[in-house]
Amino acid sequence: MIKAEIITIGDEILYGQITDTNTQWISAELDKIGIKTVRKSSVGDTEEAILGIFTEATSRADVVLVTGGLGPTKDDITKKTFCKFFGTELAIHEQAMADLKAFFLKRGREVTGLNKGQAELPLNATYIHNKLGTAPGMWFEANGVIYISMPGVPYEMKGLMTDAILPKLKEHFKTPTILHQIIRTVGIGESILAEKISDWEDALPENIKLAYLPSMGSVKLRLTGFGDSLEVLQAQIASEVAKLLPIAEEYIYALEDIELEVAVGRILKDKKLTVSTAESCTGGYLAHQFTKVAGSSSYFWGSIISYDNSVKINQLEVLPATLAQFGAVSEETIIQMAENVRKKLGTDIGLATSGIAGPDGGTPEKPVGTIWIAVSTKEQTITQKLQLGGFREQNIHLTSINILNLLRKVLK
Amino acid sequence: MIKAEIITIGDEILYGQITDTNTQWISAELDKIGIKTVRKSSVGDTEEAILGIFTEATSRADVVLVTGGLGPTKDDITKKTFCKFFGTELAIHEQAMADLKAFFLKRGREVTGLNKGQAELPLNATYIHNKLGTAPGMWFEANGVIYISMPGVPYEMKGLMTDAILPKLKEHFKTPTILHQIIRTVGIGESILAEKISDWEDALPENIKLAYLPSMGSVKLRLTGFGDSLEVLQAQIASEVAKLLPIAEEYIYALEDIELEVAVGRILKDKKLTVSTAESCTGGYLAHQFTKVAGSSSYFWGSIISYDNSVKINQLEVLPATLAQFGAVSEETIIQMAENVRKKLGTDIGLATSGIAGPDGGTPEKPVGTIWIAVSTKEQTITQKLQLGGFREQNIHLTSINILNLLRKVLK
Repeated sequence: MIKAEIITIGDEILYGQITDTNTQWISAELDKIGIKTVRKSSVGDTEEAILGIFTEATSRADVVLVTGGLGPTKDDITKKTFCKFFGTELAIHEQAMADLKAFFLKRGREVTGLNKGQAELPLNATYIHNKLGTAPGMWFEANGVIYISMPGVPYEMKGLMTDAILPKLKEHFKTPTILHQIIRTVGIGESILAEKISDWEDALPENIKLAYLPSMGSVKLRLTGFGDSLEVLQAQIASEVAKLLPIAEEYIYALEDIELEVAVGRILKDKKLTVSTAESCTGGYLAHQFTKVAGSSSYFWGSIISYDNSVKINQLEVLPATLAQFGAVSEETIIQMAENVRKKLGTDIGLATSGIAGPDGGTPEKPVGTIWIAVSTKEQTITQKLQLGGFREQNIHLTSINILNLLRKVLK
Repeated sequence: MIKAEIITIGDEILYGQITDTNTQWISAELDKIGIKTVRKSSVGDTEEAILGIFTEATSRADVVLVTGGLGPTKDDITKKTFCKFFGTELAIHEQAMADLKAFFLKRGREVTGLNKGQAELPLNATYIHNKLGTAPGMWFEANGVIYISMPGVPYEMKGLMTDAILPKLKEHFKTPTILHQIIRTVGIGESILAEKISDWEDALPENIKLAYLPSMGSVKLRLTGFGDSLEVLQAQIASEVAKLLPIAEEYIYALEDIELEVAVGRILKDKKLTVSTAESCTGGYLAHQFTKVAGSSSYFWGSIISYDNSVKINQLEVLPATLAQFGAVSEETIIQMAENVRKKLGTDIGLATSGIAGPDGGTPEKPVGTIWIAVSTKEQTITQKLQLGGFREQNIHLTSINILNLLRKVLK
């Protein structure tokens, strides 16, 4: 087993001033290539703390990944401390300086003052070009351990890992061939899904492991195969997926790691169908799920967010008598919302949501979390009543997932 | 200085399968009472790893806070490992058992099987009641160090910290009186703000510290005063805030820790004004910023999301000639969008956004990140052109912050 240790340097993380998303991402990526993280640590911007954790990590890990402390200011002492740790010193690295100059030139600026220091590296460092920023990545080999230094800015770190460091680690450690297969599900909880597929799971070959990765409203399955031959693994995993499909097909929306709104968007695009939304309780969140996907303008046309009943009446042409008799949170209202937004915006499909997101507005008959959703096509309008929980943000999110899933089923 | 170390136990966090939000929250809360976190660590569910970090932390910290590993299953070995570390053993704790039974009774169930183990504590533990779950909190004093054990479920941990542990720590360590004042700003970057207020910052009394807490599109300032008397601190901080206001008033939207949409919502509510949005590039995200706030239905009436030009023409009544001559991303179009949504939805104010969020759709004249926003009232329509960057989600978010800020200024 190849053991990794991840170290985050910076007072801001230590004092809780910023959120550290780097360590989770790095450990998940290492896991995918068969490297196990055994310790994650955050330390402050002091030489003593950094030297201490470097020494400890050296005794525990095969590879030590360090983020942060590479800025141009005095607070950032990672490089100097690496020098002290390795007994070496900083010097201008020619390629690093050339890349730094090119980086600034592209932005119409020159490398001045403090920024020049960004091209200085410890003499024993292998330089790794950071295309997205001024702090280089570095790779060290010493004490039988690999040390990797990266900037703390998440997209710069991810760029370095993906382009250079993960491939280099695979090569260096001659990691076994590993193949992952993601299976994304929706509409079923983790424990019920686990029960449903337990026979299949128990019969998986020894070299194929299953992980459940749940998030709110959705469970991700990950099959990981370990072996020598990629072809054999591909065939094995394909055969296992083929056995799983008949058991859980209705819940599986993708055999790759994409969100539900992306999967639904692709179906709409393929079928050349357009969609619009009429939203009350989701208040624009559903539209945002569609529109945050690049390229969604080819199938998503627009919405009428009818938070106030006057907007339901005047823009969505919901009959005042329906609202008076059944209320805004009712099957009668939701049908009109979905059908009318479809007709008014001229799309193939209309979606509608209306409910009590909370924390206020509940009644004994319609408690907080009572939500109606509808999907309307030219042929039919399908409705569903949801009974969700007590938290506003959760209700908005789960309503959105439920209606995207209902749409997915209608499209099948 | 009182030093804290925070330890997270669990393979799921170590392998990156779940996000750890606990350590950031804990360190931020400790910081507020004057306890400095010197190390954060995550280790796996093995006795060796847990004993190792306990020993290390004992030599570095005055208080060690541990989360996770308290479930009823075999994986969860925190309590057993504490016993080994302290040289003691587990025994049923009577109060813990009584509370456990009451917890289950409330849910119409009895304490059975594995769950009984939840009432077993190391003999040297001080029991802390967890009102929100079955895993008790524990407080140990040994080796001149305080050890605290809490469940990893975030809302259970937060409940324990807020109700019991933070007050107990304050008392135990006789921490000084600390007073915080949050000042939320928008519309100015961290470095320019720092320059603007540097004279004021330099003149702050010795016992008042300033922290910059930036997030995308907004900078939070936090003043922290240390002293003996709360009254003196309150007067001191009020006097410093009064000096700051004339320097940075145009950027300060709240003297408490609330988001911009909450602050703007309060102004709308106070002035009894209603608002609607016409959104192209934000695609519902702006409406969601309003509607995610509980109680927003009293001032937010609705939106027309006009992603497709047909919706701009048919629902928002933007003139086809305007779109043909100037395009959807233009001052001429945004004015019509804002004015027409205000009139059509019958609100006091209409907001509109139209731009190129990316990654595609840019041209040399209107590159990705070119965005027009407008705020329309009965008296006037104010427009602004934004030139943002290359990332879609960032452009959507920053557009929303910019228009909320423009609205805030108009309302003043």
